[in-house]
Amino acid sequence: MRMGMIGLGRMGANMARRLRRGGIEVVGYNRSPEIVQTLAREEGLEPADSVEDLVGRLSAPRVVWVMLPAGEVTESHLVRLRELLDAGDLVVDGGNANYHDSERRGAWLGEAGIEFVDAGTSGGIWGLDNGYCLMVGGSDAAVSLLEPALRVLAPAPDRGWAHVGPIGSGHFTKMVHNGIEYGMMQALAEGLALLRGKDEYGLDLAQISELWRHGSVVRSWLLDLTAEALAEDQELADVAPVVADSGEGRWTAVEAIDQGVALPVISMALAMRFASQDQEGYANRLLAMMRKAFGGHGIVRR
Amino acid sequence: MRMGMIGLGRMGANMARRLRRGGIEVVGYNRSPEIVQTLAREEGLEPADSVEDLVGRLSAPRVVWVMLPAGEVTESHLVRLRELLDAGDLVVDGGNANYHDSERRGAWLGEAGIEFVDAGTSGGIWGLDNGYCLMVGGSDAAVSLLEPALRVLAPAPDRGWAHVGPIGSGHFTKMVHNGIEYGMMQALAEGLALLRGKDEYGLDLAQISELWRHGSVVRSWLLDLTAEALAEDQELADVAPVVADSGEGRWTAVEAIDQGVALPVISMALAMRFASQDQEGYANRLLAMMRKAFGGHGIVRR
Repeated sequence: MRMGMIGLGRMGANMARRLRRGGIEVVGYNRSPEIVQTLAREEGLEPADSVEDLVGRLSAPRVVWVMLPAGEVTESHLVRLRELLDAGDLVVDGGNANYHDSERRGAWLGEAGIEFVDAGTSGGIWGLDNGYCLMVGGSDAAVSLLEPALRVLAPAPDRGWAHVGPIGSGHFTKMVHNGIEYGMMQALAEGLALLRGKDEYGLDLAQISELWRHGSVVRSWLLDLTAEALAEDQELADVAPVVADSGEGRWTAVEAIDQGVALPVISMALAMRFASQDQEGYANRLLAMMRKAFGGHGIVRR
Repeated sequence: MRMGMIGLGRMGANMARRLRRGGIEVVGYNRSPEIVQTLAREEGLEPADSVEDLVGRLSAPRVVWVMLPAGEVTESHLVRLRELLDAGDLVVDGGNANYHDSERRGAWLGEAGIEFVDAGTSGGIWGLDNGYCLMVGGSDAAVSLLEPALRVLAPAPDRGWAHVGPIGSGHFTKMVHNGIEYGMMQALAEGLALLRGKDEYGLDLAQISELWRHGSVVRSWLLDLTAEALAEDQELADVAPVVADSGEGRWTAVEAIDQGVALPVISMALAMRFASQDQEGYANRLLAMMRKAFGGHGIVRR
């Protein structure tokens, strides 16, 4: 199989490496050309110096995998690809797009006869070695065209990738996956903090998280990573208590509202991230003020 | 090593099996004698027909593992063992006791010179084959005496068991483990329900949960079990939407209040179980009544 890949950032570059090592011919383009040259030298990737050049190096039916930040960057590249590609070609968005965008883009590429696949991709920096978990939405024909690449990217040819439904369903499934991830992470973090808070026991969180990896009900890949990190440093003195969020947790919480379904733990995990990001603390300052107003309780001044 | 085991229910019987298969001599007692005879016949367990008989079949320093329902049953057996055992003997509570009870019992057995170990045990019905995760609290001397049994019960001699701290800390650590389990389960269940709620995609939850087991960030033992169950039946038509709780989630939430630590996701997972158990629905009926009172909104009559 021969395909193009646009966007060779941390995720895209490793996916290109895994594709190359699995025998797929990859034509690669990235805005900053250094990584393209590195991948050309080390992995035999065929470098392209523009999106046009990349498309020109493929032949019909062309397959172009886009691995770019969700939002405007992905949008503008899909607009450009619609101009450059022909009916029967295939665009794959492997990024973290909102599934509503993917539905819209799929319909709009479809008007030009261009196939679209949304491939939700999990695995992070470990995917190069372990393989990626790929949640794929699109037509049967489009997924068949892409299948050789999916078999290489996944942990095994027959495991860790699946055609889950129509266009949009891949990114939808990935969104929910990330929502679950928020909840699982928060549960682990809360429990470990409670262990640490029991001063009189002097518990060793590195020991306990490692212990739990073997035979316990909470054993999980997130616990594996946590145990590894705590073995290095469980004080975390140089880590600020601020947790970023990258969009998919928000979309999951909004989806719950759209469906009218209770999603309290996932939504709460998201709210805790927002609270951690809140430098202003205005609601807490209001609460302190209210307690003073009705009860004469003291206020911590700053 | 030779030891006694009191309580050969689902957990205790499988632990006795694993101990026997690992070469430990086990004297077993259970209120209903059938399982004792079965284990005697199949595993070479030495049957005892009473707690007294069991103690009489051991020699100093005696090691007696108690694997009984937490609360009154465990309490009454420890009272009896205190009468029967001598200074230097060791009682192990492998059940799910509240850690405050374990602290109290340890102190009270200690007054008679009897050692006490609280061994929080995870692994459920899978422990026989996979080994149990054991979180052990007690003195160094007591844990050393018990070590040969711990090495056999754990997934491997050097993995999956640990001496985490003083008396009480084993059950404390197990309690927090179960709290984390509540949160992780709830996150998984919420996410999968959201997938199912997206009617127009017709997603196959068995396919997706199996998919996530390979290379995804949420891969975990809980997901493994969930995927296996969904492969058999994803309609769950004959499962009532009522989730029991067995105490440790409650204790974890109370511990958070005692420490003054925010545990929103674990506490919410617990609250969702309570809500699922609430046949009366009085709060929801009140809310419906209030909406009618201030807004004239309709009430669903029953």
